Amino acid sequence: MEISRKGLMLILSSPSGAGKTTISRKVLEAQKGLFMSVSATTRKMRANEVDGKDYYFVSEEKFQEMAGKGEFLEHANVFGNNYGTPAKPVYERLARGEDVLFDIDWQGTMQLKEKCKPDVASVFILPPSMKELETRLRARALDDEKVINERMGKATSEISHWGIYDYILVNSNVEEAVEKVVHILHAERNRKKRLLGLEGFVSKLVG
Amino acid sequence: MEISRKGLMLILSSPSGAGKTTISRKVLEAQKGLFMSVSATTRKMRANEVDGKDYYFVSEEKFQEMAGKGEFLEHANVFGNNYGTPAKPVYERLARGEDVLFDIDWQGTMQLKEKCKPDVASVFILPPSMKELETRLRARALDDEKVINERMGKATSEISHWGIYDYILVNSNVEEAVEKVVHILHAERNRKKRLLGLEGFVSKLVG
Repeated sequence: MEISRKGLMLILSSPSGAGKTTISRKVLEAQKGLFMSVSATTRKMRANEVDGKDYYFVSEEKFQEMAGKGEFLEHANVFGNNYGTPAKPVYERLARGEDVLFDIDWQGTMQLKEKCKPDVASVFILPPSMKELETRLRARALDDEKVINERMGKATSEISHWGIYDYILVNSNVEEAVEKVVHILHAERNRKKRLLGLEGFVSKLVG
Repeated sequence: MEISRKGLMLILSSPSGAGKTTISRKVLEAQKGLFMSVSATTRKMRANEVDGKDYYFVSEEKFQEMAGKGEFLEHANVFGNNYGTPAKPVYERLARGEDVLFDIDWQGTMQLKEKCKPDVASVFILPPSMKELETRLRARALDDEKVINERMGKATSEISHWGIYDYILVNSNVEEAVEKVVHILHAERNRKKRLLGLEGFVSKLVG
């Protein structure tokens, strides 16, 4: 017997290279009822990415049109590219009691909290050390030296915003970090404020 | 690498017979670093109970003396017996980063929240139905008919206070309920507010 509930918005933020993408993927694989939020972006598609799955790859013009119509829950410019979360598919999932995972930065988190605070649970993932972070960025071999330096600078700035998050993890071990996120997801599902069917359940119970 | 943290106070409340005691026992068996809070009580020791483990069985006089000295985190009179939680052993555990489990009613929960709000995570366990609750009370065969009727009446009253709790579970299946409590315990351990070592960790990380 489950009490019907509203879905929740689970935010995972971290500096690039702190393991957020791997953790997100593993949590999504292991958990039913949790879906990745797909963002729209103006950045170029990478070789391993799929349009409509990793991102909706849109033109600058299309992006500005969506922003103008207020279709984004949050949007931001990062390294010269625009990223935004279309609101409608998220609201539809929440209403069905499905949970949505967000891989966004602190700016997006602030915007989501402003618009949807009671629905949000936010997690910040710290690297065990900055040296480890740099090693991971280099191992990815996606970026040239200049971009790596930019990302390291941005990492420090991103980390300075840990104070806006509900939960903080250190990713020393991916499996442990995944387990912690899974605990957070399941705990948050049982928060009183999400249990829309609770009053009805209790009335029926004691009525 | 773990960030040092303060322990948390995990409260489990439910009407008698909703399974709270079984759930507490199983969670304690499975989880390291979590300890049962031992209450003082003036009620008579049952055959299967151990003084100092299940309760500190104290005289009415001793209880009133402790209450007078402000030694309780919470205390209440239930069915004519006094129950109280000695504060000192709890504070000592929390300071060591250990977590403490409380099996108390809504009155105790209110008092604990007043005194220690940031350290508290509170869970209310609902029975799947009142019929099921009555069946469980009768199966326990601890109480005579009069007491069962009193407990059923008290259950309805207890349930009416679900609004003061952070998390709500329905105990349709003990193993599932245990798993949910474990998720809550682990999630709460990673809440930013408990991570006393966080500022130091971040300073060292980006410094």
